[in-house]
Amino acid sequence: MAGPGKVVTLSGGIGGAKLVLGLSRKLPPGALGVIANVGDDFSHLGLHVSPDIDTLVYTLAGLADPQQGWGRAGETWSFMSALAALGGPSWFRLGDGDLAMHVLRTHKLSNGTTLSQVTAEMCAALRIATKILPVTDDPLRTRVRTDQGWLDFQDWFVGHHASLTVREILFDGADAARPLPAVLDALADPDLRAVVICPSNPLISIEPILAVPGMREALAGCKAPVVAVSPLIGGRAVKGPTAAMLTDLGDAATAAAVAARYRDLIDGYVVDEVDHVAMKQLDIPAIATRTLMITLADRERLAADVLAFADRLRVAS
Amino acid sequence: MAGPGKVVTLSGGIGGAKLVLGLSRKLPPGALGVIANVGDDFSHLGLHVSPDIDTLVYTLAGLADPQQGWGRAGETWSFMSALAALGGPSWFRLGDGDLAMHVLRTHKLSNGTTLSQVTAEMCAALRIATKILPVTDDPLRTRVRTDQGWLDFQDWFVGHHASLTVREILFDGADAARPLPAVLDALADPDLRAVVICPSNPLISIEPILAVPGMREALAGCKAPVVAVSPLIGGRAVKGPTAAMLTDLGDAATAAAVAARYRDLIDGYVVDEVDHVAMKQLDIPAIATRTLMITLADRERLAADVLAFADRLRVAS
Repeated sequence: MAGPGKVVTLSGGIGGAKLVLGLSRKLPPGALGVIANVGDDFSHLGLHVSPDIDTLVYTLAGLADPQQGWGRAGETWSFMSALAALGGPSWFRLGDGDLAMHVLRTHKLSNGTTLSQVTAEMCAALRIATKILPVTDDPLRTRVRTDQGWLDFQDWFVGHHASLTVREILFDGADAARPLPAVLDALADPDLRAVVICPSNPLISIEPILAVPGMREALAGCKAPVVAVSPLIGGRAVKGPTAAMLTDLGDAATAAAVAARYRDLIDGYVVDEVDHVAMKQLDIPAIATRTLMITLADRERLAADVLAFADRLRVAS
Repeated sequence: MAGPGKVVTLSGGIGGAKLVLGLSRKLPPGALGVIANVGDDFSHLGLHVSPDIDTLVYTLAGLADPQQGWGRAGETWSFMSALAALGGPSWFRLGDGDLAMHVLRTHKLSNGTTLSQVTAEMCAALRIATKILPVTDDPLRTRVRTDQGWLDFQDWFVGHHASLTVREILFDGADAARPLPAVLDALADPDLRAVVICPSNPLISIEPILAVPGMREALAGCKAPVVAVSPLIGGRAVKGPTAAMLTDLGDAATAAAVAARYRDLIDGYVVDEVDHVAMKQLDIPAIATRTLMITLADRERLAADVLAFADRLRVAS
């Protein structure tokens, strides 16, 4: 007898997209939805850049650069060279092929198309069966307070190489943002099998999603099990500033500390096998498995482990 | 004893830019100014494209594609490939390096910088000593009436490959456009040696410039000799639709017919050596010389011929 079939994830960029890809390959086409972070979005040279959505699109379309995890494989850089010669800004690098996404998105947005609709059109063009849903179509921008004052996220992350100590994080616009109706529908779907919080940076990838009013309630009220995967392995992030940001903000850089941030939302937690001792001190159901995703097989295997764990939680509840 | 030193040209894109380059190499740095057509400008994918200014910039910066005459040498096309995959429009091809010009220009214009200022900044960055002056900072758009109705210029020229018969040409916005003050200053400069109307398409490159109120008066009142170079050689254009457009509109596709269009403005006319017989029937001073510009030496020699002719006209007046 078949159980419910849909799976929804919450994801930021690179790390989350790896698991999303694994899940997409373990599920029937169209069964997977991704609630994507838009807090990293910004306007650069007048172009609307959505880094996390772009990484999800490239990853799911098989276009992603396998080395760096973001951007397109086989990218060329003529635009940046010409821009530099014209005296334009070079701190944020836009690849030639990547520009197509930004230019087309910006053009469609300026004509009144929503970000979710633009994303759906691009996914359709690239034959991506997974639904990529921006958590909101309203403006929501992550900002970071440092000893140099408040900085836009990309200014801090790319412009300053994430090197300035983070004192505070703000999700500008979140209070007035409305969750995408399709996001609420997906979380309320009676056919929902599981919700998976991807191993993304909790502070700047997952919490901007949760900051949209109604999102925490929708997750807490969700009938399907909600499972989070730790982004930290033995206290370190695979990539990116997660560990440093947690300690900067006075939290511990541990899998347990991340679980605590999700406590009121999750029914189960997945840690890496190196964290199996710490796992036993958690007060929620947890499993330890290999969470490092190097190969495509790694992604599929972790996806299968997460789904099996969620299914056990559902049956047990 | 040195005569006046400044030269001003009126120019469209490819053909005009060749002579502009020749003139720039025969004059001291900064002595040459180009009044550029903006009637071809258009908005594509939300980007402000200025084809004639771009061709002038690339030609003068030594970046132009030597084969096609427009665009950049060594251009890459990753953007167009990615755009096509996303379902974006492919009828107007934007090269990767070329995009830097359009993106940076559009961004600066949206921040309130004028087209002339943006152009000056780009020329400064590329160390172009020649002043490229858009005839106006106000919107002026060439439109073409065909049997399919009125079309935007680029829709007709690129979208329809200039294949539809032209019934009428309109310079939308020209009535309200104001000439750039620097253009009027250049034409009134007491140090002006000559004005050269380049061998550009009179109908869509030069006449949009002349359609800006005050431009004909400024040229007619100019103290320096005004010399035009025929864009037709034996009744044919080197490139582009000049001859067909003239006959479409009921005019003759001849050097003499083009001279007649400029009659109240010019003091002298330069035709190709193959048109030396027709030249004798003109009622203004004229010379015949080789006007086909294949090599850089061709451009420099024609520039020298035009300057020498203008100098003779000035002395004779």
